[in-house]
Amino acid sequence: MILHEDPRSGNCYKIRLAAAHLGVPLDRRFYDIMQGETRTPEFLAKVNGDGRIPVLQDGDLLLPESNAACYYLADGSPLVPAGRFERADMLRWMFWEQYSHEPNVATLRFWLAFIGADRLSDSQRVLLGSKREAGEAALSLMDRHLAERDWFVGGAFGLADIVLYAYTHVADAGGFDLGRYPAVGAWLSRVAAMPRHVPMD
Amino acid sequence: MILHEDPRSGNCYKIRLAAAHLGVPLDRRFYDIMQGETRTPEFLAKVNGDGRIPVLQDGDLLLPESNAACYYLADGSPLVPAGRFERADMLRWMFWEQYSHEPNVATLRFWLAFIGADRLSDSQRVLLGSKREAGEAALSLMDRHLAERDWFVGGAFGLADIVLYAYTHVADAGGFDLGRYPAVGAWLSRVAAMPRHVPMD
Repeated sequence: MILHEDPRSGNCYKIRLAAAHLGVPLDRRFYDIMQGETRTPEFLAKVNGDGRIPVLQDGDLLLPESNAACYYLADGSPLVPAGRFERADMLRWMFWEQYSHEPNVATLRFWLAFIGADRLSDSQRVLLGSKREAGEAALSLMDRHLAERDWFVGGAFGLADIVLYAYTHVADAGGFDLGRYPAVGAWLSRVAAMPRHVPMD
Repeated sequence: MILHEDPRSGNCYKIRLAAAHLGVPLDRRFYDIMQGETRTPEFLAKVNGDGRIPVLQDGDLLLPESNAACYYLADGSPLVPAGRFERADMLRWMFWEQYSHEPNVATLRFWLAFIGADRLSDSQRVLLGSKREAGEAALSLMDRHLAERDWFVGGAFGLADIVLYAYTHVADAGGFDLGRYPAVGAWLSRVAAMPRHVPMD
């Protein structure tokens, strides 16, 4: 399988992390999103008409959306709970990650650590406050959830932990103080201590 | 099962639409999000600590996130493809809906049709242009996809069609001209003509 990716992206890293836990080798193809390499006519025609990475490729099949790619790799494995409610609850956290966590925690990392605070546009600058507030609310919800359990769903390490780890463990690069969320910190350590764990590049 | 919902929300409607296709009765509990009824201490403690609807309740089990709730209802039914890639591809469109479609198409409907253009905050007003552009891009991607096929995934009506129908069919309330997207318009008609279809309230 081929992973079309930018190694600085947490959305790409979560697919590599899932693949590592599953023992699936990935052939990595690199694109620099800062240079527009996912908006070329060739990329739009052959990889993803939406102009985004990651895209997981399995033969002729192309799968955009990081969490769908993780699900494809893990479907039928112990990373996806066998119970119907637990499986839906795993997806609940994965949808929540893309709606309430990534647009805030990951976007502030991208703006502050990759674009740079001095180079933000006016429309980015006006959003700094609301994204900070929403990102802190997301980390707080995770902290309250993890205060009572070791893993997000069903009492076992699984795909919800993998996809939420990706941008949470580098949230400090977006100006978030993880010291305020001790249950999140302990969970990050548990994830990183799992056999087969691989770090972000 | 109980659906905690605001009937004006497309995220709530998509669960009712999935349930209608599956023949699952739902006991509906109504909250007015404009009046903060999902931010009360009781709601936060007993329904969803994230303060959001919809939440699907099955006995003591509570499931936030609209697309996870739809998956829970449809798991094991013909609305979810049996093939591994098609199942992941369905989730691809469902994640895309929450990341690239709903925050633009649904948010502009909420701002313009429920809050009102004259009552938007400065930070909402500054986002009108980028959300318009991203919403048009989302509808355009759908139109290109549907120009070559009747349904989103695997050649059959399914959960991806249901979740994407919810906010697309009322996109005009957000100022989007669906006449620009003929393949989307034909698909909307096919969805609405399905047996067991129910309209939004």
